[in-house]
Amino acid sequence: MDFAIFGAGRIGTIHAGNLAKAAGARLAYVVDPNAEYAQTLAARHGAQVATVRQVFEDRNIGGVLICSSTDTHADLIMAAAAAKKHVFCEKPVDLDVGRARACATAVESAGITCMIGFQRRFDPTFAAVKARLAAGEIGTPEMLVVTSRDPGPPPIPYIRSSGGIFKDMLIHDLDIFRWILDDEAESVHASASCLVDPAIADAGDADSTAVTIRTKKGRLCVINTSRRAAYGYDQRFEVLGSGGMLQAGNHAPTEVVASTASAITRDLPERFFLERYRAAYAAEIAHFLAVLAGKETVRTTVADGVKALELAEAATTSWREGRIVKMA
Amino acid sequence: MDFAIFGAGRIGTIHAGNLAKAAGARLAYVVDPNAEYAQTLAARHGAQVATVRQVFEDRNIGGVLICSSTDTHADLIMAAAAAKKHVFCEKPVDLDVGRARACATAVESAGITCMIGFQRRFDPTFAAVKARLAAGEIGTPEMLVVTSRDPGPPPIPYIRSSGGIFKDMLIHDLDIFRWILDDEAESVHASASCLVDPAIADAGDADSTAVTIRTKKGRLCVINTSRRAAYGYDQRFEVLGSGGMLQAGNHAPTEVVASTASAITRDLPERFFLERYRAAYAAEIAHFLAVLAGKETVRTTVADGVKALELAEAATTSWREGRIVKMA
Amino acid sequence: MDFAIFGAGRIGTIHAGNLAKAAGARLAYVVDPNAEYAQTLAARHGAQVATVRQVFEDRNIGGVLICSSTDTHADLIMAAAAAKKHVFCEKPVDLDVGRARACATAVESAGITCMIGFQRRFDPTFAAVKARLAAGEIGTPEMLVVTSRDPGPPPIPYIRSSGGIFKDMLIHDLDIFRWILDDEAESVHASASCLVDPAIADAGDADSTAVTIRTKKGRLCVINTSRRAAYGYDQRFEVLGSGGMLQAGNHAPTEVVASTASAITRDLPERFFLERYRAAYAAEIAHFLAVLAGKETVRTTVADGVKALELAEAATTSWREGRIVKMA
Amino acid sequence: MDFAIFGAGRIGTIHAGNLAKAAGARLAYVVDPNAEYAQTLAARHGAQVATVRQVFEDRNIGGVLICSSTDTHADLIMAAAAAKKHVFCEKPVDLDVGRARACATAVESAGITCMIGFQRRFDPTFAAVKARLAAGEIGTPEMLVVTSRDPGPPPIPYIRSSGGIFKDMLIHDLDIFRWILDDEAESVHASASCLVDPAIADAGDADSTAVTIRTKKGRLCVINTSRRAAYGYDQRFEVLGSGGMLQAGNHAPTEVVASTASAITRDLPERFFLERYRAAYAAEIAHFLAVLAGKETVRTTVADGVKALELAEAATTSWREGRIVKMA
Repeated sequence: MDFAIFGAGRIGTIHAGNLAKAAGARLAYVVDPNAEYAQTLAARHGAQVATVRQVFEDRNIGGVLICSSTDTHADLIMAAAAAKKHVFCEKPVDLDVGRARACATAVESAGITCMIGFQRRFDPTFAAVKARLAAGEIGTPEMLVVTSRDPGPPPIPYIRSSGGIFKDMLIHDLDIFRWILDDEAESVHASASCLVDPAIADAGDADSTAVTIRTKKGRLCVINTSRRAAYGYDQRFEVLGSGGMLQAGNHAPTEVVASTASAITRDLPERFFLERYRAAYAAEIAHFLAVLAGKETVRTTVADGVKALELAEAATTSWREGRIVKMA
Repeated sequence: MDFAIFGAGRIGTIHAGNLAKAAGARLAYVVDPNAEYAQTLAARHGAQVATVRQVFEDRNIGGVLICSSTDTHADLIMAAAAAKKHVFCEKPVDLDVGRARACATAVESAGITCMIGFQRRFDPTFAAVKARLAAGEIGTPEMLVVTSRDPGPPPIPYIRSSGGIFKDMLIHDLDIFRWILDDEAESVHASASCLVDPAIADAGDADSTAVTIRTKKGRLCVINTSRRAAYGYDQRFEVLGSGGMLQAGNHAPTEVVASTASAITRDLPERFFLERYRAAYAAEIAHFLAVLAGKETVRTTVADGVKALELAEAATTSWREGRIVKMA
Repeated sequence: MDFAIFGAGRIGTIHAGNLAKAAGARLAYVVDPNAEYAQTLAARHGAQVATVRQVFEDRNIGGVLICSSTDTHADLIMAAAAAKKHVFCEKPVDLDVGRARACATAVESAGITCMIGFQRRFDPTFAAVKARLAAGEIGTPEMLVVTSRDPGPPPIPYIRSSGGIFKDMLIHDLDIFRWILDDEAESVHASASCLVDPAIADAGDADSTAVTIRTKKGRLCVINTSRRAAYGYDQRFEVLGSGGMLQAGNHAPTEVVASTASAITRDLPERFFLERYRAAYAAEIAHFLAVLAGKETVRTTVADGVKALELAEAATTSWREGRIVKMA
Repeated sequence: MDFAIFGAGRIGTIHAGNLAKAAGARLAYVVDPNAEYAQTLAARHGAQVATVRQVFEDRNIGGVLICSSTDTHADLIMAAAAAKKHVFCEKPVDLDVGRARACATAVESAGITCMIGFQRRFDPTFAAVKARLAAGEIGTPEMLVVTSRDPGPPPIPYIRSSGGIFKDMLIHDLDIFRWILDDEAESVHASASCLVDPAIADAGDADSTAVTIRTKKGRLCVINTSRRAAYGYDQRFEVLGSGGMLQAGNHAPTEVVASTASAITRDLPERFFLERYRAAYAAEIAHFLAVLAGKETVRTTVADGVKALELAEAATTSWREGRIVKMA
């Protein structure tokens, strides 16, 4: 099957590379407003630089990977639905819940597959926790504690157009919550602060958050997030169940332990998402192809994308208005 | 110096044992409504069984240890203040904030020492985190995540008279929060659920909680608590600072690692508070005696007891009324 | 550059896959006495099934990968030297030290590259220890302790033709010794036992060994090995230096920790060498190609292969004759 | 029962303290050539300073603790046997195997208890490994790897009179070997080097050793030892069995983990034997008293002391003569 990719930046390059390794998949087109980026990526995989229109008019294109900037996601999904092309789209679907829902409706009407890039569900450690939970290893889950910290904040201009920390950063954690507890939010409370860089507050955003979700089944989820962790990318969660606890820890580059006169030391975690989720990115593209081949059912749907966005919006409201937000 | 102890139960027995090991301290009296308990403990340390009145009328008594049931704490502190006896009192000061404040006033007027039994501050691991924070090892603290889980719930009758999970169980965690962040709460949000045993809900209480505190300096604290952890007593916290993270982990009985065909296993944590805080209990009594000897300044004051209680009350209100509670 | 591979078994398949991913390298021929194996591997990479003669007569072939059975290694190296083809050869060079030395001489005369597949040197964890040692992190190395255990013994017919546990299994550990301590053996003592399966003793071999090497600089190395570890593939070593210790630990598939009523458990190590050394296999082929491209100097030479074999022979002698063997 | 202690140094002070805490035991006499040491220790426990003769002539003395210098052990054991006093004696029994055997004979004839201070058997972690081995958790033990390193070497005069590293330091590890594998040595090979301080070689001793023992049942034991570990007191061992592995790790003062921009760090191990074996010292004296009270059977006998010494002598011979030593 032939594919086109929108966006030739960091994440687009990763996905294109994983697609290229797959048997039976061919990257035909690369679309990017930056001609140099587009050319470089196209050359690497024997693809052509193209326009959006070219992609959707080409009958040989079976699917598209949307890795362009967030403000283009909804339009491209809509166009793909109209052209009956299957979609893999990076999160978030859109910053506006209404538009995200419209995408979901369009996808459903068109009968296309639309997979959202919640790659964490494909991480070996996270997926193992999910599988072991499902196998009943710790009984009924009761509480989820998610720790999610970036090594450092993005540039201020990025923050200004990001939709805020809840939509930009916590969207992943909110998806983890729904996936791991297999439950929906009844109420959301978010507290937040700007502790890392006052310029983030000036941009109207926060950089440190604490979110509490109470689910319809009465379970509890707490998510703590920071735009900065001096020690690197911190991606952990733990589930307390009636029969015990499952913890997902960070991955390290090596298993070296050094003991010197001052301390016993281990490696810092993998530096950032490209390193931490390398295997996850490969697995999610493999899953996308398996779905298109009719061998698997899509696991991160556009509906999941909408739900996570609704939670991010509720958290934003809770923080801005200083109140607990009830979910429908 | 001669001492009397009120309460000859589990914790009274621990404190009496630690007192007995100290040079220059003598346990003179044991008071307990249960004559057998009182007799047993008195006999072990060459003390006499006595009444409350006898204790406070004896001029040789320099200090008292209040380890009796919570509803007796305030009266005994008041009586000790009147009789100018120094006090070591188990938490909480009282279930009623007003009465706790009255105790603080009485203590101040009398000029006696009144140390509250927040033993966690004396735990080697927790105290090391505090010291390393103070030394600036991770810069400015920004976020505190506390995990506090009991191995199993107490009997329902105990729960009924406990003042609720926030005053009974989280009071320790709320003190940890104030001590570690060295800051006061601006607002408190508590969510809670009954997931362990429906009889706890019938008793009007919850068994699983998630508390978020935003401090006056804008820092964030999240506390997650459960009355049950199948794997034992779980007492951890972690502090994220501008320069890194400090984590306080559980203690285990041994350092054995077993690798078999099924898994690599380590010991469960120390079973419950008597085991986990053995060293802390010894250190807090040593501190109490050092304070009375004029060598140290009391580190867990009655004011700390009042503050923790105020937070527990705010959390209870937040949970019951479904709203964020602002602190004065 | 065009390559041929001898041997289409497990390890040949791995190397062919890594070669295929490299830019500028093409697998042209597959040679294997098992026609089906050869056909399958050739088909996967668009290569042709060929004979030994065809490979060495083809002027386009720049290098060969020798992944066939041990008894063919020396002849193929000799043939490659004669045909001036560069060689990557799996360990051991040969079971006979004399023949291995002859290979080294032929390689040198021909001026070809002959890299031996000591893949452990390319493992991220092991390589990090080496780099940190070289950077002086623990001062001067004094003692090396190597633990090397397979999940289970190979079939008895394999053992019979393996050259014995020292040449078959410890050859890797003996290379690690030379590489990590950057020193040569002065004396070798080996003790061994048959504890896993009496059929191994019947085949004239041992399955559990303890080797001590004293180096020319007076350093000490102890290697303990077993053909069976119920918990999987155990590949650890630690170096004690004047300033501390560096330990290389096992790798696990995930970072999940489970805490239940019985224990705290972690994953078993990666199952066996194909999983454990996946990254190392990729890195060693990349190194081989970089050497042929003139960008790097070969790090695991045929001389290293000879040295490791000499140590394996000394250990065998020490065990069989019950004496300490002095090295030249 | 009344006790006397010979030796008021570091270890004598520890044992006297543990004895003093025990119900029913009274320290009556302290004997030490250093009058000040003797006086200080006696004063602390309400005991009297005495001479050897006074101790053995006092009919009220039931047992003696021999914590004086090694060269006095044998004479004091002999005298205790003659006076029918029970004995707790620090290791080693004597530096001379013949004299140690004579002590064992005298003890047996006299019918007294003579417990040797192999305190490691009473360490919670080591004892747990032993118990779990006995319970069959890893099947039949096959291989034991012992790592035993001091934080730094003792003064050279101490080394000169110590009997050498094997009798002074490895005697504990050799006892661990016999206890854990429940087997006796068939042959011993020792390699050693002087890598820490050339003055140790000048004193005729080594500071780094590697010992291999093959047991009568064909099991293997390797012990690696150093007089210096920059990171502190390293006391680990691991047992490989047919069904898995049990590892005994170091103990740390706290469970703090720090993550900073440079690394993830944990505490160094407990500093030295007084800290590491604090619990073990208490447990061994409790055991000694339980033996005298007829409640337990002595677990570290004078015969164990003799056996460990024989192994230490064999290791010394192996090293000095460069040969494998067969045991009787």
